[in-house]
Amino acid sequence: MSKLTDVPKRILIGRALRSDRLGETLLPKRIALPVFASDPLSSVAYAPGEVLLVLSIAGVSAYHFSPWIAVAVVVLMFTVVASYRQNVHAYPSGGGDYEVATTNLGPKAGLTVASALLVDYVLTVAVSISSGIENLGSAVPFVVEHKVEAAVAVILLLTLMNLRGVKESGNLFAIPTYVFVVGVFIMIAWGAFRGLILGDTMRAPTASYEIKPEQQGLAGFALVFLLLRAFSSGCAALTGVEAISNGVPAFRKPKSKNAANTLAMMGLLAVTMFCGIIALAMTTNVRMAENPAVDLVKNGVAAGSGYVQNPVITQVAEAVFGKGTFLFVVLAAATALVLFLAANTAYNGFPVLGSILAQDRYLPRQLHTRGDRLAFSNGIVLLAGAAALLVWIYGADSTRLIQLYIVGVFVSFTLSQTGMVRHWNRLLATEKDQDKRRHMVRSRAINAFGAFFTGVVLIVVLVTKFTHGAWVALVGMVIFFGTMTAIRRHYDRVSEELAAPEGPTDDSVRPSRVHSVVLVSKIHRPALRALAYAKLLRSDTLEALSVNVDPAETKALREEWERRGIDVPLKVLDSPYREITRPIIEYVKGLRKESPRDAVSVIIPEYVVGHWYEHLLHNQSALRLKGRLLFTPGVMVTSVPYQLQSSEAAKVRARRRGEWNAPGAVRRGPAQERSRESEARK
Amino acid sequence: MSKLTDVPKRILIGRALRSDRLGETLLPKRIALPVFASDPLSSVAYAPGEVLLVLSIAGVSAYHFSPWIAVAVVVLMFTVVASYRQNVHAYPSGGGDYEVATTNLGPKAGLTVASALLVDYVLTVAVSISSGIENLGSAVPFVVEHKVEAAVAVILLLTLMNLRGVKESGNLFAIPTYVFVVGVFIMIAWGAFRGLILGDTMRAPTASYEIKPEQQGLAGFALVFLLLRAFSSGCAALTGVEAISNGVPAFRKPKSKNAANTLAMMGLLAVTMFCGIIALAMTTNVRMAENPAVDLVKNGVAAGSGYVQNPVITQVAEAVFGKGTFLFVVLAAATALVLFLAANTAYNGFPVLGSILAQDRYLPRQLHTRGDRLAFSNGIVLLAGAAALLVWIYGADSTRLIQLYIVGVFVSFTLSQTGMVRHWNRLLATEKDQDKRRHMVRSRAINAFGAFFTGVVLIVVLVTKFTHGAWVALVGMVIFFGTMTAIRRHYDRVSEELAAPEGPTDDSVRPSRVHSVVLVSKIHRPALRALAYAKLLRSDTLEALSVNVDPAETKALREEWERRGIDVPLKVLDSPYREITRPIIEYVKGLRKESPRDAVSVIIPEYVVGHWYEHLLHNQSALRLKGRLLFTPGVMVTSVPYQLQSSEAAKVRARRRGEWNAPGAVRRGPAQERSRESEARK
Repeated sequence: MSKLTDVPKRILIGRALRSDRLGETLLPKRIALPVFASDPLSSVAYAPGEVLLVLSIAGVSAYHFSPWIAVAVVVLMFTVVASYRQNVHAYPSGGGDYEVATTNLGPKAGLTVASALLVDYVLTVAVSISSGIENLGSAVPFVVEHKVEAAVAVILLLTLMNLRGVKESGNLFAIPTYVFVVGVFIMIAWGAFRGLILGDTMRAPTASYEIKPEQQGLAGFALVFLLLRAFSSGCAALTGVEAISNGVPAFRKPKSKNAANTLAMMGLLAVTMFCGIIALAMTTNVRMAENPAVDLVKNGVAAGSGYVQNPVITQVAEAVFGKGTFLFVVLAAATALVLFLAANTAYNGFPVLGSILAQDRYLPRQLHTRGDRLAFSNGIVLLAGAAALLVWIYGADSTRLIQLYIVGVFVSFTLSQTGMVRHWNRLLATEKDQDKRRHMVRSRAINAFGAFFTGVVLIVVLVTKFTHGAWVALVGMVIFFGTMTAIRRHYDRVSEELAAPEGPTDDSVRPSRVHSVVLVSKIHRPALRALAYAKLLRSDTLEALSVNVDPAETKALREEWERRGIDVPLKVLDSPYREITRPIIEYVKGLRKESPRDAVSVIIPEYVVGHWYEHLLHNQSALRLKGRLLFTPGVMVTSVPYQLQSSEAAKVRARRRGEWNAPGAVRRGPAQERSRESEARK
Repeated sequence: MSKLTDVPKRILIGRALRSDRLGETLLPKRIALPVFASDPLSSVAYAPGEVLLVLSIAGVSAYHFSPWIAVAVVVLMFTVVASYRQNVHAYPSGGGDYEVATTNLGPKAGLTVASALLVDYVLTVAVSISSGIENLGSAVPFVVEHKVEAAVAVILLLTLMNLRGVKESGNLFAIPTYVFVVGVFIMIAWGAFRGLILGDTMRAPTASYEIKPEQQGLAGFALVFLLLRAFSSGCAALTGVEAISNGVPAFRKPKSKNAANTLAMMGLLAVTMFCGIIALAMTTNVRMAENPAVDLVKNGVAAGSGYVQNPVITQVAEAVFGKGTFLFVVLAAATALVLFLAANTAYNGFPVLGSILAQDRYLPRQLHTRGDRLAFSNGIVLLAGAAALLVWIYGADSTRLIQLYIVGVFVSFTLSQTGMVRHWNRLLATEKDQDKRRHMVRSRAINAFGAFFTGVVLIVVLVTKFTHGAWVALVGMVIFFGTMTAIRRHYDRVSEELAAPEGPTDDSVRPSRVHSVVLVSKIHRPALRALAYAKLLRSDTLEALSVNVDPAETKALREEWERRGIDVPLKVLDSPYREITRPIIEYVKGLRKESPRDAVSVIIPEYVVGHWYEHLLHNQSALRLKGRLLFTPGVMVTSVPYQLQSSEAAKVRARRRGEWNAPGAVRRGPAQERSRESEARK
């Protein structure tokens, strides 16, 4: 089973696990944190820069508002974390925001959340990879000089990895995430030590620039609007916080408690890093401009179109560690890597959400079953294609992509928290125990505040970002919503049509006799096997049927039939135009017309071959015929396969496909508690 | 059935015939002539020019050899026609050269002929369309200025027509072919009248040019070689002569006699037209150069790269009728049209030959049956793709393409005539009747001379054209030969593996009992129907099988099962990872392991939907499962279809597909004598 080519893969991500060993892979907190938090933690790599960027519109003087904006983001982060800790306890099944919204606010709200999350996954890929390329570019300028190509190449790489079935591995996530977190903390600590204790003056590479304000002397409403825009940009730090609430089943027991604690830990780390980076940026005089080529000015000269504005985090690292030092390079690499892992979480999150949506029949049923490679592949290609399109349209510019990003996140935050308030209201209506009631009232207060706050942020985001790109995200949501509604409507219509009428028997679908017909073209092993099987089935009548395409062959068939003394009558249909399908269909229809209450069983010997090109040489008429027979009422179509030697190759391939690991398997946890008793009960 | 969009089609080609009315469409000679002769007759549009082109290498003085070359071509034409009249009488079944070579010289010779003919079909399309565009270009210069694009567009148009199933219609062929023939005869007669009676001096548009000989003062061997090259180019007039020998079954009775007479008529028309055009070309001083831009000189100035050299036939028409006159335009249009029809014959000839080759298992079996649209489509697309590639590579230059053309034709001529000699030898060995013997000896002499003459021409063509492009045709033949040999070998290997051992029974394939399993996911009409059908089959054991993907659904299923009192035991398989295929496959394998001599019948309820996108939403698991079950020995797989309302749309589409007319249907004639008795015998 192990091949040489697997070795690098094994080194990278550890031995692939068969999915039936998934049960052993429940995540301890130290692994769950990086698996679920790479997305929110990595967003501190771009969120601080976005705040400064927006403020720069009013000039450097506006930078003194940045601590206040940081405080607002921190308060929001704590609110959201506190709210989601309630979700995790109340809904440990991993349905996340979709389940909460559907259960408490109805299917339309749930579908809105789902649409928002699907858009979110696309944008997570686009934003994280663009930002990762920008961070990598601080250390390796070549990458940022070919930004779009590099970003699309990373998307392609992640797509291929996920299509091939590289499984999300805890260790793969743990190392770079911890390196990143530890690196940022060392940077903050070392920066504080140098600044406060040693009294060094640390200067970012852009410290010597002036910013030409795009709008001078903003005041009143305009200033408030700008601060709100800066705040909405800072909210990018909150993306991905909800991931843990989708992943509760993957935690070790006690699942909810562990998940809630991991969530708190994640929130704490994120806000500390966010604030630390903002503080260092202020200390080292980082200058960020929306349009650096024009607005960054040194000694009266603009930076010019060739100028590349590095992300805040690497500018700060350069100031603290020095450019090109070991720690600087390690941090830049870890930042890029953790951003790519954040993108990968979207590849894993998609099938998880898809599976839940499929269960509710908003997406094709087969997404519901695990390990259906084809279904997952389609989803992954869709995700990657949409992300690559966005990256290409927006020139892999993380700043422009972020304008689209935050809408979806806050739609699901707001609806989820509103749903939680209803949840507690419902429970409070019946709960008598005063202790529990107190607890619930407290939870409800937290969620109500969360709903209010995230709702306000959603409005702020919509108002400040709509023309900057948020409308694109809304269009995406409407498309997903419409498609899923149509799919659900189709399934409902079919389900209604298929519904079995009540009563123990149903005469309209029960025929009285079966007329079996074995199709024979010549006497070979498959035909003999099909005849033998047909006889075993003891239908009311049995005959062999052949189509006279070539009179000589037909004559030979008749003679061999008699010589061998086969005790099944052979009927030969005439086909003056060498057709096969039409005479058989007409014969079967004729049988049905003679006795409409009988069913016809058509038994077709089939060869099983191993290579696709062999398929072209066999079974084509049988396939065509089966396709037509399915449209003929009162018919059942039986294939009696005969495995040729070459089919062994295909069998091996099929088995290998069976061992494929669907992306998202780890974060989904085992599908449900194993219930061996259902097997035993029978 | 009739739609508005069909009206133009009807006007163009007459009402489409259902293939079961094909029997009424046997061709009278006056229709058979244009159907089969559009290819050889149309070749007089380019063959005379090719002769002059080659001669021009030695300068205008060499043109005086052209009548001698015309005589050689005429003798060859009469030889070939006389030879094929023997073929038509001896092999009236329509197998043509392939049948003659296979029967008399063995399968390798037959396959060589088949490969040559397949290459020939590709080149017929490429050469005829390129030449048609050149002729059309004499009247409409725009076309010839975008030669490659125009040629590819015509190929595309013919391909679409044939894919859609526009049937070869006698009338479609008759009108332009007769217009062309009559037009050429009027031109020859009017030219002779003007020249001989009125004493007019008619001058072709190129009459005032001088030709700069590429090789001056050729003599001895070099001159003979040039004359032989000119002769081989003139042999392009013989392409397509063999078509009638493939089409004997399409003639009215007496088939062979009618076909032989049509062949003679065709030969007579072709040589008259060929000689007439050469004579007029000499009279009107047509100048053709291989490289007109450089070698055509007027008053010491070369024609230059913008110069377009019109075909001989339109130059002559211009001299006789005058440029832009009604008759000139009609003749140019008829010439182009008859050349496009000649290309269309390849689209029709391919399936005819493909069907015969499929019968001998050199090509996929489904080509053998008529009306298998998919198989024909693949062949047509292959043909069109190869022709378009050649047109593109050779810049739609008929002169360069003709270099490839003639090899294949003469390979099949030579092998076929050699086979005919063997045929007569074999018959003479047993024939006693002196009258018949005399007849056979005469036939043998004709065929022997034919074989000798065409063999010599083949060698001449190979020697004079090999480096000019004939090698490409040989490579094509080798590719076809190799592919068909490989397909045949595959079929033989499979056939050996499948061969039924002797003896009335064969225990190794005969199981003793059948264990039936009905797959059920929920209780709906399809499931109830499948259960009802399964019960009718009276297998030894019967159970319903469900996979526990969702515990709640499974519980509901069990409860409804009991409530309805369904008298089939329900077994539920556990699937902790929401897989469907794997648990079922393992269960079936387990059943087989318990009792290896039993067969397992897996019965799957299936919905039939009408639209491809609905397929994406249904039956995917069932399809996947069926695919895997086919690889499991001792299993039969039964689909019990349930037709949803939307399947009506697909049924209508399928019926419309069933009415599709395969290209080549007319020229193939009915497949065989209807033998209603085979139906009655049962």
